[in-house]
Amino acid sequence: MSQEKLRRVRDRVRSFPDFPVPGVLFRDISPLLKDPAAFRALVDLLEDHLRASFPKIDLIAGLDSRGFLIGPPLAQRLGVGFVPIRKKGKLPGPTESVSYTLEYGKAELEIQSDAVEPGQKVVIVDDLLATGGTMCAACELLKRLKAEVLECLVVIELKLLKGSEKLKSIPFHSLLQYE
Amino acid sequence: MSQEKLRRVRDRVRSFPDFPVPGVLFRDISPLLKDPAAFRALVDLLEDHLRASFPKIDLIAGLDSRGFLIGPPLAQRLGVGFVPIRKKGKLPGPTESVSYTLEYGKAELEIQSDAVEPGQKVVIVDDLLATGGTMCAACELLKRLKAEVLECLVVIELKLLKGSEKLKSIPFHSLLQYE
Repeated sequence: MSQEKLRRVRDRVRSFPDFPVPGVLFRDISPLLKDPAAFRALVDLLEDHLRASFPKIDLIAGLDSRGFLIGPPLAQRLGVGFVPIRKKGKLPGPTESVSYTLEYGKAELEIQSDAVEPGQKVVIVDDLLATGGTMCAACELLKRLKAEVLECLVVIELKLLKGSEKLKSIPFHSLLQYE
Repeated sequence: MSQEKLRRVRDRVRSFPDFPVPGVLFRDISPLLKDPAAFRALVDLLEDHLRASFPKIDLIAGLDSRGFLIGPPLAQRLGVGFVPIRKKGKLPGPTESVSYTLEYGKAELEIQSDAVEPGQKVVIVDDLLATGGTMCAACELLKRLKAEVLECLVVIELKLLKGSEKLKSIPFHSLLQYE
């Protein structure tokens, strides 16, 4: 059943060479979002994984912008809240901010200072892990707010870029792996 | 019941003056996303409204980035697909593109050319309608793909900015209205 769901999800990821810059093979989840049964299978798989892995989760944090597509349906399934982690300048009020390098470029990531209580158990969700720069920055933000990062969870992992090594001791899980 | 849900949603919207620029009162839905019962009430209300209004919906289109937080849970509830409409340069493959003016600045919006079939019935979802520039641009993109825009649907409408007038003949609905 779970293998069938995984196949259904994998069948709805397509690839575009040289996007957004030459040399990058872009994995596009648009067909997955557009197929309601495949999208449901995706949320099922993520929910099952988290329920089996962690007895208690307080919050799902999602990364701007494609993590926003996956985090809220997952949080609703688990009955927990969702917290957005955004590019600089998008969140009002007091924020924590951290700079990082990504697969193609540089950026700054922010979280609202009151987004998480100290000690809350948080899972960070994104569509894809490449070099891991964005995910590491998100972990750093949650660490500053004294949250406990249970896991970094992504749909797609680009194994060749070794992003999961950058996460060091933080647990990491991906549904689909590509070289 | 519906009034109680609406109250619950409204109670979780907070305001920040002079963000992101002086003179703008920013409506922040972060507390709404973080409260799973309030977020569920929001999706309930949007689902009930759409089911009561339209016998058939093919797709929910969501606007980058905060429309991404609301569109996918709503699409899953309705059992239909989700299509992202994004800022320029974010979507791979052939795209349609349109320039527009927003509340504070200028931007370009894109949709993948194969995102929608001609004649498909689409609801466009975003968190907020201000001047209506972004929403109009999204309507224009869907029109180019020969989709039928059933409605533009937002959580929050800033009435003073008269964005809904800019949408002209396209049906529009908001859950919460602020002056």
